[in-house]
Amino acid sequence: MIPGGDVRPMASDTNRRWLLATRPTGEPTREDFELETVDVPEPGPGEVLVRTRYLSVDPYMRGRMRDADSYADPWEVGEPMRARCVGEVVASEYDGLAPGETVTGNLYWAEYAAVDGDRVERIDTGELPVSTALGVLGMPGRTAYVGTVDVGRVEPGDTVVVSAAGGAVGSVAGQIARIAGCRVVGITGADEKADWLTGELGFDAAVNYRTADDLPGAVGEACPRGVDLYFENVGGEVSDAVTEHLTDYSRVAVCGKIALYNREAGEVTQGPRRLHQRTRTRVEGFIVSDHAHRFEHIGDRLRRWVTDGEVRYRETVTEGIEEAPDAFLGLFEGTNVGKQLVAVS
Amino acid sequence: MIPGGDVRPMASDTNRRWLLATRPTGEPTREDFELETVDVPEPGPGEVLVRTRYLSVDPYMRGRMRDADSYADPWEVGEPMRARCVGEVVASEYDGLAPGETVTGNLYWAEYAAVDGDRVERIDTGELPVSTALGVLGMPGRTAYVGTVDVGRVEPGDTVVVSAAGGAVGSVAGQIARIAGCRVVGITGADEKADWLTGELGFDAAVNYRTADDLPGAVGEACPRGVDLYFENVGGEVSDAVTEHLTDYSRVAVCGKIALYNREAGEVTQGPRRLHQRTRTRVEGFIVSDHAHRFEHIGDRLRRWVTDGEVRYRETVTEGIEEAPDAFLGLFEGTNVGKQLVAVS
Repeated sequence: MIPGGDVRPMASDTNRRWLLATRPTGEPTREDFELETVDVPEPGPGEVLVRTRYLSVDPYMRGRMRDADSYADPWEVGEPMRARCVGEVVASEYDGLAPGETVTGNLYWAEYAAVDGDRVERIDTGELPVSTALGVLGMPGRTAYVGTVDVGRVEPGDTVVVSAAGGAVGSVAGQIARIAGCRVVGITGADEKADWLTGELGFDAAVNYRTADDLPGAVGEACPRGVDLYFENVGGEVSDAVTEHLTDYSRVAVCGKIALYNREAGEVTQGPRRLHQRTRTRVEGFIVSDHAHRFEHIGDRLRRWVTDGEVRYRETVTEGIEEAPDAFLGLFEGTNVGKQLVAVS
Repeated sequence: MIPGGDVRPMASDTNRRWLLATRPTGEPTREDFELETVDVPEPGPGEVLVRTRYLSVDPYMRGRMRDADSYADPWEVGEPMRARCVGEVVASEYDGLAPGETVTGNLYWAEYAAVDGDRVERIDTGELPVSTALGVLGMPGRTAYVGTVDVGRVEPGDTVVVSAAGGAVGSVAGQIARIAGCRVVGITGADEKADWLTGELGFDAAVNYRTADDLPGAVGEACPRGVDLYFENVGGEVSDAVTEHLTDYSRVAVCGKIALYNREAGEVTQGPRRLHQRTRTRVEGFIVSDHAHRFEHIGDRLRRWVTDGEVRYRETVTEGIEEAPDAFLGLFEGTNVGKQLVAVS
């Protein structure tokens, strides 16, 4: 049942995977996750067995751990944590994929997964590392493009502010805005990241929200003509500071609000707290998966830019499946620079 | 009735102006225009008397000479030809404007015009010459911006083709697309203009449609990834040549079709001759005056770019009111580089 020569898992191989142990309230902790060891699954008819190379941890996962209405169903307690992964097909009962091929798909925080062959896709990263399929060429890169171009309707000459600018999405969004002829200002929580933004990535300015004495003033200083487009990743006080500087007919592309994800209902002041009708600002939330018909176009463009060095990326790679919860929890502290990955095998 | 000191017209001054003598069929000729000399008008209550410094001739005027349904009423035979002008207030019966002020408005092919003070506006070209209010900072510049950004939805990484690229609108549209992070290809009818586009204006390539042996092939060579946005100024065979290379989800912003303006109904093959549904191309015509709420924003941006040298412009200035018909007729031959103006005083 498990063809594939060198790449077949040993009979003694086990599959370690993380379950959602409890639904966290407020800040998640390592105790909300449980590592279990099971047998490597065998692929059923139409399935492939994938050995995970990298799994992606992303802020949206905090929402799936909550039992609340959202655009996707919550994950169940006692069930495996899910993740976008890159891995190698080690056994196949699916005609379209052979052992040895590298694929990506929505799998698990696990060393192995058996999954319908239709639910993974062959990776097309060209000469770039396969890990980019989870970052600059994957969901985060697509999100950056959709938020900047499709939702944010970026215009040449705009001043664009990106929050969580040192993260997987923000760092790419800012570079797309730079290519699109904009003044780009990143908001981040570490001087090291600020230096990366204004140095290697070509941002025009960066603001460290943790050290700024007067955050609205610092944003205003970095944006002398106001803010035409705000790529919103964080919410809270950073959002308030940017809102004060929005220009007439400005736009806010709401990608996420990580500063609020660990707060419970009732702890968050709802609504746009400082937004005036006067500026005719359009605030629009978006979910990248709604834009699937654009992914081929966006992928071509991102691949070209990365290959040409127009868009640069970093990955923070945590080694070992056993470290997956810490990698995830670090997102809320901003310990990652660029895309946070877990290297599994 | 005519205050204003040094700038008041002499009592002996006359006002030369051009009338539409006959409605042309096909190519207009100088005989379709008649120059008459009348007295300088006196401004009535609420009016200003404006002495024309520059008048603008534009391709759209051919449409006004035709008795056909359009977005604006046709001009009448025996009536003065109209034009966007820049001039000096030499007498005022309007509270908001004083003699000596420089204004722009829709006036006439004439040395003087008396007009409601509400129908002209003070010029705001900053340190730039007042003539720019008729070109790069005026209707042509606004048209270039609206067509590229609002209608064309330019995206960073697009390949953008502009026809009549050496003209007032096309030369600015291409530069906006360049700033917006695009590969920009201009189509023009003279090597001198092609050199200007790829040299001073920073276009990536230019195609001379008059000398290309295989125009569709030449466009294809200049656009190896296809054409994502076509800024259409000409129609006809140039349009056909570009259409062959349109990408999936491409856009055509139809600003004008000067190649067809001198043809009569029945002489023009109607419809998108080579456009396939397959590419999901959006073809959209536009009239810049529908976008008036954007003009302040667009004006600020263009003024900044021109001041910073990011957008460059040329003007072809024909001297003397008596030459206005020739300046207009030259548009159909492409004798102008950049904006065609007539210097009147």
